[in-house]
Amino acid sequence: MRHFMRKYLLAGLAALVLPASAFGQDAEVPATPNGIVDAAPAADWVPIEQRDLLVMDLAPGPSGKVRRVVIQLIDAPYVQGWVGNIRALAAQHWYDGLAIVRTQDNYVVQWGDPDGEDPKKAKPLPEGLRIMTEDDYAVPAAGSEIDASTRLLRDAYASLAGFDHGWPVATDGKSVWPVHCYGSVGVGRDLSPDTGTGGELYAVIGQAPRQLDRNIAVVGRVIEGMEHLSALPRGTGPIGFYATPQERTPIVSVRTGEALTDLPRYEYLSTSSASFAAYLDKRANRSDAFYIHPAGGVDVCNVPVPARRAAR
Amino acid sequence: MRHFMRKYLLAGLAALVLPASAFGQDAEVPATPNGIVDAAPAADWVPIEQRDLLVMDLAPGPSGKVRRVVIQLIDAPYVQGWVGNIRALAAQHWYDGLAIVRTQDNYVVQWGDPDGEDPKKAKPLPEGLRIMTEDDYAVPAAGSEIDASTRLLRDAYASLAGFDHGWPVATDGKSVWPVHCYGSVGVGRDLSPDTGTGGELYAVIGQAPRQLDRNIAVVGRVIEGMEHLSALPRGTGPIGFYATPQERTPIVSVRTGEALTDLPRYEYLSTSSASFAAYLDKRANRSDAFYIHPAGGVDVCNVPVPARRAAR
Repeated sequence: MRHFMRKYLLAGLAALVLPASAFGQDAEVPATPNGIVDAAPAADWVPIEQRDLLVMDLAPGPSGKVRRVVIQLIDAPYVQGWVGNIRALAAQHWYDGLAIVRTQDNYVVQWGDPDGEDPKKAKPLPEGLRIMTEDDYAVPAAGSEIDASTRLLRDAYASLAGFDHGWPVATDGKSVWPVHCYGSVGVGRDLSPDTGTGGELYAVIGQAPRQLDRNIAVVGRVIEGMEHLSALPRGTGPIGFYATPQERTPIVSVRTGEALTDLPRYEYLSTSSASFAAYLDKRANRSDAFYIHPAGGVDVCNVPVPARRAAR
Repeated sequence: MRHFMRKYLLAGLAALVLPASAFGQDAEVPATPNGIVDAAPAADWVPIEQRDLLVMDLAPGPSGKVRRVVIQLIDAPYVQGWVGNIRALAAQHWYDGLAIVRTQDNYVVQWGDPDGEDPKKAKPLPEGLRIMTEDDYAVPAAGSEIDASTRLLRDAYASLAGFDHGWPVATDGKSVWPVHCYGSVGVGRDLSPDTGTGGELYAVIGQAPRQLDRNIAVVGRVIEGMEHLSALPRGTGPIGFYATPQERTPIVSVRTGEALTDLPRYEYLSTSSASFAAYLDKRANRSDAFYIHPAGGVDVCNVPVPARRAAR
């Protein structure tokens, strides 16, 4: 690991170098990233476990229909203390009746207990939640997919960035941590040393706020219904909080996938697959009829990990 | 220039190194980026000329009020052919009555002639518009602010990124070009070698789509009313186009600031000022009570250039 990292750092990372094709020498690579994803074989898709899905139903909007947001919870070894708390809170229906309290443009949508700041009115948290420390924001790099990967990306915030078992991550060579991208879901907290319980969550709706990495727990990402969060009216109070209760969007329910019988199956494109490598390469080197100038590089947050409903 | 660039490239860009304080050795630096902006002296603010403002009024939304979007047009030497066309189209009221035709989540809001693809129904463009070439997407780096700057940023798409007279840019050492960040406004075009006229525009509403740099002209950025674009309902047609005319948002009018008598004065924080340097440094190294782990770096698109209404 250490040798590998050093080699990349010494090379100055002047260019992202990737194999021209993961489709084999004779196969034709589709011209667009989406074309590559569509052509990916079934074996390159990883089913998402029902327990790794968090489904938030918001009160009906102008259309009159419940607005469903489907979140994929992050896998071990990342921030599993918080993920366990979130599963427990969902199992106890703790989030039901709470609300979206904040929408700050180019930053986050945040939900939880509107009275959470008032000890007299705050909804009590159940017993048995885990308390995490700031050390839990990152894990050792050894053994991660990024440790073995040759598909590392230049990064403005860390030594390198890449992907680990489906998740965008960054590393300093010793530790690795999940990063804040568009659609990432994280855990609200008070000032350090508080690390948050999972009772208050947010989703990113703008430019990746990577300054939050290792300062707050990334617990998942929105894989369906993102528009129900990103298109919400912006709050007019300080830092995007809604100035009046009427502006908040009520949460009908939050459940894990295991608790729902009507939920489709979801899957994501394995980030260690040849298809993903080709997709990443094409995101970094656009070469279809529209593009005249391939960049030769791409930001880790500009390579969204494809996720979709499974055909079966 | 060349020597300077080489020095940075050979250093591997392992860390963004900036002076600890641009406020002088004895002055107290505000703890937050916004605090630094608020404390910036008047001399660090640059008035925006009225002719560099493009004001788009959208039909009233649920509140019943016209939704005003204020755009700052990019300065010379960048993409001035397109900017000239846009000023001419606004002067002729050409955009009035057109519409927002597309809102694609985590990508762009686009506006123009809904019938633009149909030669029989398309609104004719006036005579005298300039035709630009793909060479016009970038300009020589020599003489730019980035040429002389020590405040350069690691970048996933180019050799380096930075700021030039108020605009986020990237460079390969020889040329320099404006980049696509959240809120950037660009010129829609057909397939190459078409470069667009300015009759169709878009604004970025998600993760910086930097793959568009040098492939399409960046002509400005939204400095007020961004929420009137970013919170629009997402289009349900392919790539976010609205499936029905009823879903489109009508454009009441588009004018340059010179044509309006009721417009406030706007100003932006000089990107060559000490205040901006301190602001950038703080964006890269958060050190207030919330943050426990400063990143030591920041993406060029995560340093929005402060712009505001002038006090006078």
